[in-house]
Amino acid sequence: MTARLQFWFEFASPYSYLSAMRIEETANRSGVELDWRPFLLGAIFKKDLGSIDSPMTKNPKKADYMWMDVARQSHRYRLSPFKVPDPFPQNGLLPTRIACHLMGDSRLPEFARTVYSAHFQKGAGLTDATALTNILEQLGFDAKSVLEKAGSLTVKQKLRNLTDEADSLGVFGAPFFVTQNGEMFWGDDRLEQAVESALAKS
Amino acid sequence: MTARLQFWFEFASPYSYLSAMRIEETANRSGVELDWRPFLLGAIFKKDLGSIDSPMTKNPKKADYMWMDVARQSHRYRLSPFKVPDPFPQNGLLPTRIACHLMGDSRLPEFARTVYSAHFQKGAGLTDATALTNILEQLGFDAKSVLEKAGSLTVKQKLRNLTDEADSLGVFGAPFFVTQNGEMFWGDDRLEQAVESALAKS
Repeated sequence: MTARLQFWFEFASPYSYLSAMRIEETANRSGVELDWRPFLLGAIFKKDLGSIDSPMTKNPKKADYMWMDVARQSHRYRLSPFKVPDPFPQNGLLPTRIACHLMGDSRLPEFARTVYSAHFQKGAGLTDATALTNILEQLGFDAKSVLEKAGSLTVKQKLRNLTDEADSLGVFGAPFFVTQNGEMFWGDDRLEQAVESALAKS
Repeated sequence: MTARLQFWFEFASPYSYLSAMRIEETANRSGVELDWRPFLLGAIFKKDLGSIDSPMTKNPKKADYMWMDVARQSHRYRLSPFKVPDPFPQNGLLPTRIACHLMGDSRLPEFARTVYSAHFQKGAGLTDATALTNILEQLGFDAKSVLEKAGSLTVKQKLRNLTDEADSLGVFGAPFFVTQNGEMFWGDDRLEQAVESALAKS
């Protein structure tokens, strides 16, 4: 049986960015198939903590460390220099709906990586429909049609269901990795272990 | 010049436990000298967040994950099976003062590991003076004299200074690793990188 791993990601999350940029290479090397699962972490923060903001940003010492650490890990992974989004965090609803619509399309990972690198390397806004249109066109999509479908009731409901599923699984942050037998791994630092575990139990 | 690395640890912290049990082997392999730095994380939580409790335990989903993850990492590091302390967290003031008194004594790491394994593997309480007396005797100390000195004004002030120093460095959790040129690494997952970095910059 092919080993599979769910990759739960949130566009506004810096550590989801780090994982999104490198997960395919790591998984491919091990022959693990990925299921890219977009969701809205803010909705889960709101339910769990009463506020949509990341707990990371509430303590200035922790926030300073996080930005330094994400920049350091970016460098370690040989990604382009990291840029702190301004403002942070931004509402990733629009790209998340698009990602939701693209589930099952083999171009979803590339779409996600392009949005992530625009946001965390070039300072593009997550709510910027023009920037997203350009990304879609650049990847060969009919941008108008994709954006229309991303705004449909079907996709809205699908995204709500995905976020509820994440919540039921016990997801409280991002990225999260879930193996076929339900083993959970939180954070970019657990990516390798998650892939290993997906493989060992398949 | 010998590469040095500061290892800031808190006795009640599960991830400090994981690092304490394995840091000497990792550092020795690389020829990095360790400075074991006890401090009181609760005092920093109180100052930063208004409560001495770990932010980890405030969200039940996060707490559940943490216990599962610490047990999983223990197993991965081939430590004896992990036991969740009851209650958690406990006040580590007494062993921390002892550790503070033992700074500069080559037996500090062994004392720390013995306290950690009693607490996180055997369910011993951190506030239990009898258990700590037994540990000191087992390690060949004059327990009565050590406990007396650990309760002196000098040691109390030294611990306050250490905790203030951690706070000034930007420490907001544990374990924390600080290299000679001030590079900071938070969490057991950064232990290897911290040792690497201590070495590269020495």
